[in-house]
Amino acid sequence: MTTLVLVSHPQLADSTSQQFLKESLPDDDIIWEHIESLSSLDVAQEQAQLRRADRIILQFPLYWYAAPAGLKQWEDTVLTRTFVYGDHRYPLADKELGIVVTTGMPRQAFQRGGAEGVTLDAALAPLAALAHRAQMRWLPVFPIYQFGYLEEPEKLQLVVDYQRYLTQPQPDSLANRQDWFAQRLDGMVARLAEDQRTTGRLIASVFEQNREQIDQLHDTLAMIKEQDDD
Amino acid sequence: MTTLVLVSHPQLADSTSQQFLKESLPDDDIIWEHIESLSSLDVAQEQAQLRRADRIILQFPLYWYAAPAGLKQWEDTVLTRTFVYGDHRYPLADKELGIVVTTGMPRQAFQRGGAEGVTLDAALAPLAALAHRAQMRWLPVFPIYQFGYLEEPEKLQLVVDYQRYLTQPQPDSLANRQDWFAQRLDGMVARLAEDQRTTGRLIASVFEQNREQIDQLHDTLAMIKEQDDD
Repeated sequence: MTTLVLVSHPQLADSTSQQFLKESLPDDDIIWEHIESLSSLDVAQEQAQLRRADRIILQFPLYWYAAPAGLKQWEDTVLTRTFVYGDHRYPLADKELGIVVTTGMPRQAFQRGGAEGVTLDAALAPLAALAHRAQMRWLPVFPIYQFGYLEEPEKLQLVVDYQRYLTQPQPDSLANRQDWFAQRLDGMVARLAEDQRTTGRLIASVFEQNREQIDQLHDTLAMIKEQDDD
Repeated sequence: MTTLVLVSHPQLADSTSQQFLKESLPDDDIIWEHIESLSSLDVAQEQAQLRRADRIILQFPLYWYAAPAGLKQWEDTVLTRTFVYGDHRYPLADKELGIVVTTGMPRQAFQRGGAEGVTLDAALAPLAALAHRAQMRWLPVFPIYQFGYLEEPEKLQLVVDYQRYLTQPQPDSLANRQDWFAQRLDGMVARLAEDQRTTGRLIASVFEQNREQIDQLHDTLAMIKEQDDD
């Protein structure tokens, strides 16, 4: 799976959250592009890049309940009507569209009666409508609230969640999560130093055993639920 | 009342609808500004202009369910957090925010199940949230669908409706409409040629008689409704 990460931020170097996310990128097949760093928008090149990707991630800080002007400029220039839905051809159809949005406000602010008075989902309606028009699949939004206040364990969790958002097959089910972790575990063990590899293999084998147990529990639960439905 | 009309369009000269709206501007106290024509954004000057206005109109074509990048750039630059709600001062509080939005799609497209799959109100959620944050009063949106297909009588109606949207006191009640027309009628008659002025005065006096009759009917209706409530 190829993932295209389009980052929009007017001062990327000054953004600790964006630098953190850049360093958290997984080793997978990721194309990463910072829109404001492009000297000019090469429409054909940008469109070709979109065609190649299976998952497209728009990543930006929320400015006045929307992406920065740079991303809107990219939309207005690259996403020509002819490209997106001209002649009843939909080159972006069935690609996934994900939104990674950072905000300095807390989660509670984004609800009716909250300080912002609008949910993130409602604020992102224009991008959701674009996905709808292009026949893309809208992924649940990936919000990062108040990055500056995150503790170390929360940041480590953020790395894993972000990597999964970029590369894990949808839906975000237990089975898909397990597969995603299992795939990465072997690679992580291989990259360990010689003396740590035994410990790494042990962790991997415990993970594998747990996984089998969870599968069995899952099957048992499914059987119980089926009986309940009778 | 001072109205500030901020127009955002990347090619204003090529837009027949925007040229039409420009020619339709009323003679009232209107400040009209084309954002993309500004060589640079003078933040202090733009903010001072906002402070002076009682009603602020954002006028633009709908590109991907939002304003063009130019307006977003203006928002990201001019509307600093300190200006809009810093130190619990709200310089835009109680000012009215109106949206004049043109679109090449028909009215029916903007509903669930329609071609666009989103209402204009939902698409404009970010601007509504901005109004909420700034403690401004959100006016009902003024949409112009498929300007290119309007017939002459529809265009004449559009001129009047647009002028009212820019200058008529809210809410858009019968009484406020009548007052608005009455105020303009004298001015129109005064500008007529000598030989047409008698006809003009006749029209004005019929309008005034009708208005009194409507007021009486209104009072009668109110009495009947009050009795119904018993």
